[in-house]
Amino acid sequence: MISRRGLIAGGAVTAAGVLGPHRSERQVIRLASTEVTPFHGTHQAGVATPPQAHAVFLGFDLLPRTRKEAIVRLLQLLTDDAARLTQGRPALADTEPELAATPGGLTCTFGFGPGLFAAAGVDSPVAALPAFKTDRLDKRWSGGDLLVQVCADDSVSVAHAVRMIVKDTRSFARVRWTQRGFHSPTRRNLMGQIEGTGNATDLDKAVWIGQGPLRGGTTMVLRRIRMKLETWDAADRVAREFTIGRRLSDGAPLTGAAERDAPDYARKNALGFPVISEFAHIRRAHVADPALRLLRRPYNYDEGLSAEGESDSGLLFACFQADVGKQFVPVQRMLAEGDLLNEWISAIGSAVFAIPPGCAPGGWIGETLLS
Amino acid sequence: MISRRGLIAGGAVTAAGVLGPHRSERQVIRLASTEVTPFHGTHQAGVATPPQAHAVFLGFDLLPRTRKEAIVRLLQLLTDDAARLTQGRPALADTEPELAATPGGLTCTFGFGPGLFAAAGVDSPVAALPAFKTDRLDKRWSGGDLLVQVCADDSVSVAHAVRMIVKDTRSFARVRWTQRGFHSPTRRNLMGQIEGTGNATDLDKAVWIGQGPLRGGTTMVLRRIRMKLETWDAADRVAREFTIGRRLSDGAPLTGAAERDAPDYARKNALGFPVISEFAHIRRAHVADPALRLLRRPYNYDEGLSAEGESDSGLLFACFQADVGKQFVPVQRMLAEGDLLNEWISAIGSAVFAIPPGCAPGGWIGETLLS
Repeated sequence: MISRRGLIAGGAVTAAGVLGPHRSERQVIRLASTEVTPFHGTHQAGVATPPQAHAVFLGFDLLPRTRKEAIVRLLQLLTDDAARLTQGRPALADTEPELAATPGGLTCTFGFGPGLFAAAGVDSPVAALPAFKTDRLDKRWSGGDLLVQVCADDSVSVAHAVRMIVKDTRSFARVRWTQRGFHSPTRRNLMGQIEGTGNATDLDKAVWIGQGPLRGGTTMVLRRIRMKLETWDAADRVAREFTIGRRLSDGAPLTGAAERDAPDYARKNALGFPVISEFAHIRRAHVADPALRLLRRPYNYDEGLSAEGESDSGLLFACFQADVGKQFVPVQRMLAEGDLLNEWISAIGSAVFAIPPGCAPGGWIGETLLS
Repeated sequence: MISRRGLIAGGAVTAAGVLGPHRSERQVIRLASTEVTPFHGTHQAGVATPPQAHAVFLGFDLLPRTRKEAIVRLLQLLTDDAARLTQGRPALADTEPELAATPGGLTCTFGFGPGLFAAAGVDSPVAALPAFKTDRLDKRWSGGDLLVQVCADDSVSVAHAVRMIVKDTRSFARVRWTQRGFHSPTRRNLMGQIEGTGNATDLDKAVWIGQGPLRGGTTMVLRRIRMKLETWDAADRVAREFTIGRRLSDGAPLTGAAERDAPDYARKNALGFPVISEFAHIRRAHVADPALRLLRRPYNYDEGLSAEGESDSGLLFACFQADVGKQFVPVQRMLAEGDLLNEWISAIGSAVFAIPPGCAPGGWIGETLLS
């Protein structure tokens, strides 16, 4: 027997024995729904913020003849929505105000594509990426004038914020794509790899832009990377670890003992070959200069299964860097030219955005670029 | 500045100020990935288990000419997968064993549709539901010979278990539908209502079957209920609360002060009309006899937005009851005949399954029905 309260409370379990020793953990998960991440500040939230459990990336196209004045009005509206919703307050004319009370660490992060700058008659600080030979891009998942990245630990908070934001854009823009992702506290992706090792740490150099209208902002590249999990499954552990250059069990480089150990790219095995292959993913992606590293903030995606049980899954690879041309492009070129992992992954979507700095109360996201 | 560790650890935040006072909560969320829900027992897990954050409902069709012997073999395989994965151990021939180590409270619950019993040559304890006049059923979301409900607080754990299960069914069955849902610790659905108030509490009477081959088991009805959120938004608060019979703010009945207060269906207002309308959702759904109540275990779904920003969202209404005909059908008939909420919801998918009892170590789910 189990009490009614225990059954329906979801988080607050009172029936001993159903969840055993986990009661306090689940209670805390419930509390986490009331978490608040500050909205106002030098930088937008959602970049340096540790990834929350749920993300929706919304790509919008501005409606034809939407010019600077309308774009500014839209950004003021959306800034107001984000400033309220992230703090647990309903949006103006919120139709489900109850859903705003539990933001669950909600962040709403805005990015501007080249098309937004063109429409506003302002020089764009970002340009479309060059083509990479491994790209298999689908227009359906690429481009976009305006990005809104919505993340929270509470899924209903994300769904609600997305609805409010889409409503307020309707007079100005159309949804071009919606990409849903999830993050596990284990940081594992669906291939089993631990994501995020070797991320940028000196954010003032590698991520935040130090001057000009984007000062305090950054840039974002969003790539939809499909994983061919069916053939990945056919590779054995040795092949997989050779491909990546790390152990799957703990993420340690093949030359090290722990995840955070620096890979020894010079080390050779008894036969004189490099322990970490010349074509291993981590070697191709390696950036020696900490000021040039990327801040990756990826989410897994999984869009279900075909009738044959083939999975449409992969990674929403989001990364932030001060300079796309000097940081993302060279790494991606190295990967496109010789990463063993290319056998099992391909980019099917791609977009690039300028991420404006944060704003103070009363300000709006984009004011340094479009005022 | 923020430390590398704080950035990439997801849960374990070391950079003060980024998440403010929430450090310990997020750390506990991370720990929750290692939670284990017992698999073996009198009842299957995933029925009385408080709803985890993520769910995938998989509906399978058996391949033509799949008979009892093959079905038994399939169920033995799937039972073995579930017994391992839910306990944090890899499935046999698990291709991503690392993803099995953090089950996050994983449960895998199996259900048999009428077609499975027919294929096995066994009398079915469940039959397709009668038609209800408010149904707008789509074959795409209806029926199915075999159900697997996969739930966990860790999204990657769900994705991994789904892959392993689908793989092991390939020789026997095809995926008919995949339905993904999410649950908020607030228990709010996307209309803002609190779900689960008034759920069955006497499970031995209302849910668990007391005799016959399904002894210790139950039945499940799964309805995909689309919400017309755009028109719901157009209704004001008074209309919404009148429709439901409860306050949106706290879920209290219109005649009470707190969510758990029993609704007073006899109370009239100054004009002599019932405070809770004759056609209010809670009155239509009310079941006086505790032994006939449903155990609802619903998940929200949100499949994104059309180009016009219209949402494809609603509820995966899963409920468990000892007797579909005596418990679910009369309630659904009352709702179909006169629930004010029908203006904003319609069932677009429907399926019914027998949920076999649990099994002991060495046993398999379905052994009391198919041995």
